[in-house]
Amino acid sequence: MTAVTPRRALSVAVVGATGEVGRKMIEVLLEREFPMRELRLLASERSAGRRLPVAGIEHEVQVATPDAFDGVDLALFSAGGSVSKELAPEAAARGTLVVDNSSAWRMDPTVPLVVSQVNPADASLHEGIIANPNCSTMQLVPVLMALRDAVGIERVIVDTYQSVSGTGHKAIAELEDQVRAHAEGRPKEHRVYPHPIAFNALPEIDVFLENGYSKEEWKVVMESRKILHLPDLRLSCTAVRVPVFYSHSEAVHVETRDPVTPAEARELFAGVPGVVVQDDPVSHLYPLATHAAGRDEVGLAFWIVSDNIRKGAATNAVEIAELVVANDWLAKASERRGAVTAHGGGRGSA
Amino acid sequence: MTAVTPRRALSVAVVGATGEVGRKMIEVLLEREFPMRELRLLASERSAGRRLPVAGIEHEVQVATPDAFDGVDLALFSAGGSVSKELAPEAAARGTLVVDNSSAWRMDPTVPLVVSQVNPADASLHEGIIANPNCSTMQLVPVLMALRDAVGIERVIVDTYQSVSGTGHKAIAELEDQVRAHAEGRPKEHRVYPHPIAFNALPEIDVFLENGYSKEEWKVVMESRKILHLPDLRLSCTAVRVPVFYSHSEAVHVETRDPVTPAEARELFAGVPGVVVQDDPVSHLYPLATHAAGRDEVGLAFWIVSDNIRKGAATNAVEIAELVVANDWLAKASERRGAVTAHGGGRGSA
Repeated sequence: MTAVTPRRALSVAVVGATGEVGRKMIEVLLEREFPMRELRLLASERSAGRRLPVAGIEHEVQVATPDAFDGVDLALFSAGGSVSKELAPEAAARGTLVVDNSSAWRMDPTVPLVVSQVNPADASLHEGIIANPNCSTMQLVPVLMALRDAVGIERVIVDTYQSVSGTGHKAIAELEDQVRAHAEGRPKEHRVYPHPIAFNALPEIDVFLENGYSKEEWKVVMESRKILHLPDLRLSCTAVRVPVFYSHSEAVHVETRDPVTPAEARELFAGVPGVVVQDDPVSHLYPLATHAAGRDEVGLAFWIVSDNIRKGAATNAVEIAELVVANDWLAKASERRGAVTAHGGGRGSA
Repeated sequence: MTAVTPRRALSVAVVGATGEVGRKMIEVLLEREFPMRELRLLASERSAGRRLPVAGIEHEVQVATPDAFDGVDLALFSAGGSVSKELAPEAAARGTLVVDNSSAWRMDPTVPLVVSQVNPADASLHEGIIANPNCSTMQLVPVLMALRDAVGIERVIVDTYQSVSGTGHKAIAELEDQVRAHAEGRPKEHRVYPHPIAFNALPEIDVFLENGYSKEEWKVVMESRKILHLPDLRLSCTAVRVPVFYSHSEAVHVETRDPVTPAEARELFAGVPGVVVQDDPVSHLYPLATHAAGRDEVGLAFWIVSDNIRKGAATNAVEIAELVVANDWLAKASERRGAVTAHGGGRGSA
């Protein structure tokens, strides 16, 4: 965990405060004792006026307007792409650093896309917005980083087993209802997904693109390339929704440049912050079941599981905020460069 | 479908007649009007004496002993590996052709392992036993065959999404019970699987081997190599149980020797008997979602779904039986060669 020793406590806003990820962001900010002098809960007009208890004190949810960011140092956004597209630049223009959980800014070349353990230095390059990756990408890149650095990566194949909580409240309720319908012998109704998700596996997450990939699959490809600084990484993904409430699982197959044994991979993975290696399949202990792909192959196959709401979204956003505060990167990169010039390079001479 | 025109109707036995696959075998034999003069239902002592209706007529289940095969032309086995290990040679010694659905004989070099559309001629080489592959292999090899023949295969990666019916009655009941427990707020109990399967994804099917693969994963590797006549095929598999009752799904990634477009693959797959291509993901029409793996790659990714009890086990066993009858391969290969010699090559001069 990054030590956070800010010069002052901050004014923090959470945008999308009533959603699944927004509420988890508030929880993680408190858990990690993020230095706050103020916490503004922002949401759409529909949720405005609701009161949420935060550390025992009721907070009223306010409408997320451009002016709601006046005086805010840091805003964590998790309110969907269109809200981020519209409001993140407004917040940034008011001097607020935005950490955005939507897909709106991730592939923008001027916006750093950061996983705290993988490419923390990229956060320093921000111009007011830092993007948080998609949850499926988030759990994949730390282990790929370890392999990239130690043995090189030739090709990656990922097949996902994603929970309904990634879609939000409505999808959790839909699976609950379908399960009850099954138990009671009622027909299963579906509105959130194109087919019933209960007792099914749907190879469709988000819309399909012209290249044949779903948008979710393409996010994993493009975001991994950006975060890992491997623009030509050969990665293929099939993203599948399964009837699981929380946590995404992924079956990952990596062809490496240099040979690596399962024992070496286990050690590499254990060295990555935030990764817990559980590998004793004979005792039914996985999630991270690492095994050799075949005797004559340079490759690995393993299984990764992560809480898609916590590390997959909320925790990484707070970790980015901690990173920024600890390194004094709150101001835009261009302004910090200006400040150094103005002070004749007198800042941080070490 | 193979045209079955036997010289005489056959005496057929189903071993494991009360099980999930055994009952489906009986259903498929009747559905396809397999030419039978007698149908013997055999099972363990525990099930002996039970009466099962077959085409409206009650049949009594008899104990599967060596002598129960006297006079039987063809026996379809689906009673587990140890029963097959013990009784299949006894049946074969009595002149019965065994089509075995267990894993007991699949990798025996003297036993053909046959998928009816893929390597039918291998069935002709039997010495009394023909093996039916594992259900996960079964749905994979027909499409791999099409790619092998048209563009060559360099490497295959398969991740499975397997239903509980593959484990049998008890597992179906366990998932049912866990779902009811969830709906009623009771704790979920588990005996069949090492963890609750409801709302979970378990990367453990069958026991783990010393090479790090589970036995199920290794079956897919070794059986595919044997059926496709590609002893060095580079194939890696992660086999995962998901909370689905019936049908297995597979995410498959193939690196081909020659380039192939998704449109060409679609056409190739459509030409394989038993394969239905459903590929309009934008209209939410998959199972078989075929898409390009990346701009600079020679590869394909697709999604296959199959009923693991029907084609995955029962139908292929009956198709093998039809194939044998249609080609007059009921007798052992060595005996047929002997017969030809004895008659001075007078048989089948065409």
